[in-house]
Amino acid sequence: MTTPTDFLDTLRQITGAPHVLCDGDLSAYTQDWRKRAQGKALAVVRPASVDEVAAVVKACLAAGVSLVPQGGNTGLAVGSVPDESGTQVVLSLQRMNAVRALDAANLTVTVEAGCILQNLQQSAEKAGFLFPLSLAAEGSCTIGGNLASNAGGTQVLRYGNARDLCLGLEVVNAQGEIWHGLSGLRKDNTGYDLRDLFVGSEGTLGIITAATLKLYPQPAARLTAWAAVPSMEAAVTLLGLAHQHLGAGLTGFEVMGQFALSLVDKHFPQLRVPFLDAPASSEPHAAAVDSRLPQQGPQDRLCRTAGAAAPPGGSEPHEVGSVGAPYFVLLENSDSESEAHARERFEGLLETAFDQGCVVDAVVAENLSQAKGLWHIRESIPLAQAEEGLNIKHDISIAVSRIPEFVAATDALLRQRIDGVRLVNFGHLGDGNLHYNVQAPEDGDAKAFLRDREDEVNTLVYDSVVRFEGSISAEHGVGSLKTDKLPHYKSPVALSMMRAIKGALDPQNIMNPGRIVKL
Amino acid sequence: MTTPTDFLDTLRQITGAPHVLCDGDLSAYTQDWRKRAQGKALAVVRPASVDEVAAVVKACLAAGVSLVPQGGNTGLAVGSVPDESGTQVVLSLQRMNAVRALDAANLTVTVEAGCILQNLQQSAEKAGFLFPLSLAAEGSCTIGGNLASNAGGTQVLRYGNARDLCLGLEVVNAQGEIWHGLSGLRKDNTGYDLRDLFVGSEGTLGIITAATLKLYPQPAARLTAWAAVPSMEAAVTLLGLAHQHLGAGLTGFEVMGQFALSLVDKHFPQLRVPFLDAPASSEPHAAAVDSRLPQQGPQDRLCRTAGAAAPPGGSEPHEVGSVGAPYFVLLENSDSESEAHARERFEGLLETAFDQGCVVDAVVAENLSQAKGLWHIRESIPLAQAEEGLNIKHDISIAVSRIPEFVAATDALLRQRIDGVRLVNFGHLGDGNLHYNVQAPEDGDAKAFLRDREDEVNTLVYDSVVRFEGSISAEHGVGSLKTDKLPHYKSPVALSMMRAIKGALDPQNIMNPGRIVKL
Repeated sequence: MTTPTDFLDTLRQITGAPHVLCDGDLSAYTQDWRKRAQGKALAVVRPASVDEVAAVVKACLAAGVSLVPQGGNTGLAVGSVPDESGTQVVLSLQRMNAVRALDAANLTVTVEAGCILQNLQQSAEKAGFLFPLSLAAEGSCTIGGNLASNAGGTQVLRYGNARDLCLGLEVVNAQGEIWHGLSGLRKDNTGYDLRDLFVGSEGTLGIITAATLKLYPQPAARLTAWAAVPSMEAAVTLLGLAHQHLGAGLTGFEVMGQFALSLVDKHFPQLRVPFLDAPASSEPHAAAVDSRLPQQGPQDRLCRTAGAAAPPGGSEPHEVGSVGAPYFVLLENSDSESEAHARERFEGLLETAFDQGCVVDAVVAENLSQAKGLWHIRESIPLAQAEEGLNIKHDISIAVSRIPEFVAATDALLRQRIDGVRLVNFGHLGDGNLHYNVQAPEDGDAKAFLRDREDEVNTLVYDSVVRFEGSISAEHGVGSLKTDKLPHYKSPVALSMMRAIKGALDPQNIMNPGRIVKL
Repeated sequence: MTTPTDFLDTLRQITGAPHVLCDGDLSAYTQDWRKRAQGKALAVVRPASVDEVAAVVKACLAAGVSLVPQGGNTGLAVGSVPDESGTQVVLSLQRMNAVRALDAANLTVTVEAGCILQNLQQSAEKAGFLFPLSLAAEGSCTIGGNLASNAGGTQVLRYGNARDLCLGLEVVNAQGEIWHGLSGLRKDNTGYDLRDLFVGSEGTLGIITAATLKLYPQPAARLTAWAAVPSMEAAVTLLGLAHQHLGAGLTGFEVMGQFALSLVDKHFPQLRVPFLDAPASSEPHAAAVDSRLPQQGPQDRLCRTAGAAAPPGGSEPHEVGSVGAPYFVLLENSDSESEAHARERFEGLLETAFDQGCVVDAVVAENLSQAKGLWHIRESIPLAQAEEGLNIKHDISIAVSRIPEFVAATDALLRQRIDGVRLVNFGHLGDGNLHYNVQAPEDGDAKAFLRDREDEVNTLVYDSVVRFEGSISAEHGVGSLKTDKLPHYKSPVALSMMRAIKGALDPQNIMNPGRIVKL
């Protein structure tokens, strides 16, 4: 065992002294995005190449020092900051941020782990292609972190999670060896799928330093629609119709509860949430809706599609305090032909949906700025929640077919248990992924509510999720937040296999120890 | 260690005596599909449930007997038959063949490992959905085998390999424990990706007993087109245009060399290969082609699409003995709207392709039977090869962008080395996957050629593949055939991680030992 000083000197020799940070305010590296944890690092090391990463790992291995790999440090599960011991090294990939190569004929791009997602999206766009991964933190998260946590986001329905977009990896393993697996191959059956093992392993098996990723042709047009639906069942029916009518054009299908949107309306009234007071069951209204739509200018009016038939009686109980539809859906159609074609396809879908009674009101955005306005409403829900006060967040997934039953059952359990509970339910219904959040009751002490009841609420929700054979972490990962929950909610056989893999690939337990599985 | 008799009695108690086969002709279980290996089994066990599979594994573990899991035994890499020792148990999944559940709203189907692929396709179709995995052996291969070998086939371009179609697994691991991982979830980030580790592991880590798989909406129409192209570069350009024009509609893009098709023409003249004598560079011919097209009846004429401009001079050297275009492409467009729409999209694509000179001649099938006729030509290449005599097969992948250069370089090396060598090059160009096969020279002793030169040819081709950063097994897997080749052609770091995983999950090495990695 070397002394800390020797060890730090070794790191400085590898990366150059300016890239080994030990003093000053390191909270950008040691505090997590949601400010739930403040760790302490022995050092923050910022290597500039895969060889430097490998050398840092070897130095840590020799010194018995553990490593916490870090990208943009925007994770939501406290997986990329050090613990409080002050003995861990944060290995930041930020300096490895190059787009190494874009291969148009192969529809791939090879990029270093520290590249910011938005920069990658823009590189692809500049070359005439789409890199479809898209999520709220895209301006600061890195592709390495996206892969390490198998990020989801808004385009999963069509293009899959980060894992599905990855064809190959460059990895430094826990022995400090470099695996040059940057395959641009769409087919390679020469052994175990190491790529997908590292993707989603949250830095506990090795460090992703670069990746070869899939590109897609840019769609000719992207259109969004907004629909008020009479129930969660109706939202699921609408999803099935959307798959049938739009095929692979369906790139987004977001559901939002009435209360979630009422918070947006309350805190950001300028966003003009459509149909918030639309009746849950009535003749479709063709007038008197535009005044509440997000408008960019007098000419940017939303085009309303109304079906011929009245929807059948909506028997779904509304959210507490609501007089309108209980749920709303944002649909996105990415068309390979033209905007006119996209609109025609949307209109055919919405007419059928009106006829079948699974839509009460609907609009199709007239132009890109209206489309962005609708997405902006959807993306403002977490901010509106924060404005409203403290809340408890969940990131769960259930088979799409069971979501209505899950929501009804879990809503009832929570209402029974907690007086005045307020449910902020929204998410990627097309992927079966809900952010099933709980806002503290309106007139109480929100801080006390969280302190006293967060565990109880989590247990109630997760127990319900597992009864419906769902997952307690759909897209955010495990990190420090949920490692201790896995033994309660995950198959012991799966856990024992995961532990065996961790022990085999990182026997000295130096890679982000204590996350996902404990040895 | 129990005696063999005790051990066999234990197996009989688990499955019932009729399902432990020891005597008689067991070659259906012990000889591989291509009859390259004839093994010998201690017994063939045919359990009927996951519990019986688990009990068999535990019995084998206790007795120190190794297991070879087997589905339809149609693999091409000798991965599912026992060795010659007579000490291994073949565990056949054939009796576990139920479609357990189809969830329309979740777009998933849960099916047992022994279900024949075609039966699964038909179950999906009956419910109005598409299960897109499709390959030559679909009438007898099983979904368990498809997953264990991560099967590819003709629809990978749009829907991915077997791995990409799988959402969850039920697995009996090497300890005889059952992992109930039959998730219908599209997002689940609670730890390492065990699913994708078992998929493609060829029975060496555990036994897949059931899977939850993705379904897709049935396309409204499927159309195929056939194009003569002036070079492999032109085929790659056409692929890029097809991605742009058809988007996710592009479900198939197969390339076929002139010599490969000339063998079909020679041995199955009734199939009428289109444009086999089309000039590689000339004005598009609008007439005098139909006489050679696959015709089902007088009304089933193929509709020919001819561009306005002449293609530029084709400078690509032709296949030896050819006067026509060197390569041909079969394209498939799966349309979510209508046949008319699919045709219109195809015509737009082909006109652009003619204008850019990357297509010399093209037809779009008029109806389903013509479409099937075109696919039938493509699928008859291996049979025509067999009719022609002995040959050496390869299943390789390269980045699409590098395929023209790879083919030119490897063709030249083989021609330089072997007088009269005949290259039968065809495959899934859209996936970068070629069956780059070598037919023995025309007038020699084919048997002697294979005996004397197969290793030399394989080495030449695989060395070239690795120079182009490709894979020596794109979709067929490793099996016994290629296990010993991996150390020469795969990264030692990847191999050492694979070996660590095998050792961790199957420390007693009872699961299909000797395949993929040797402990």
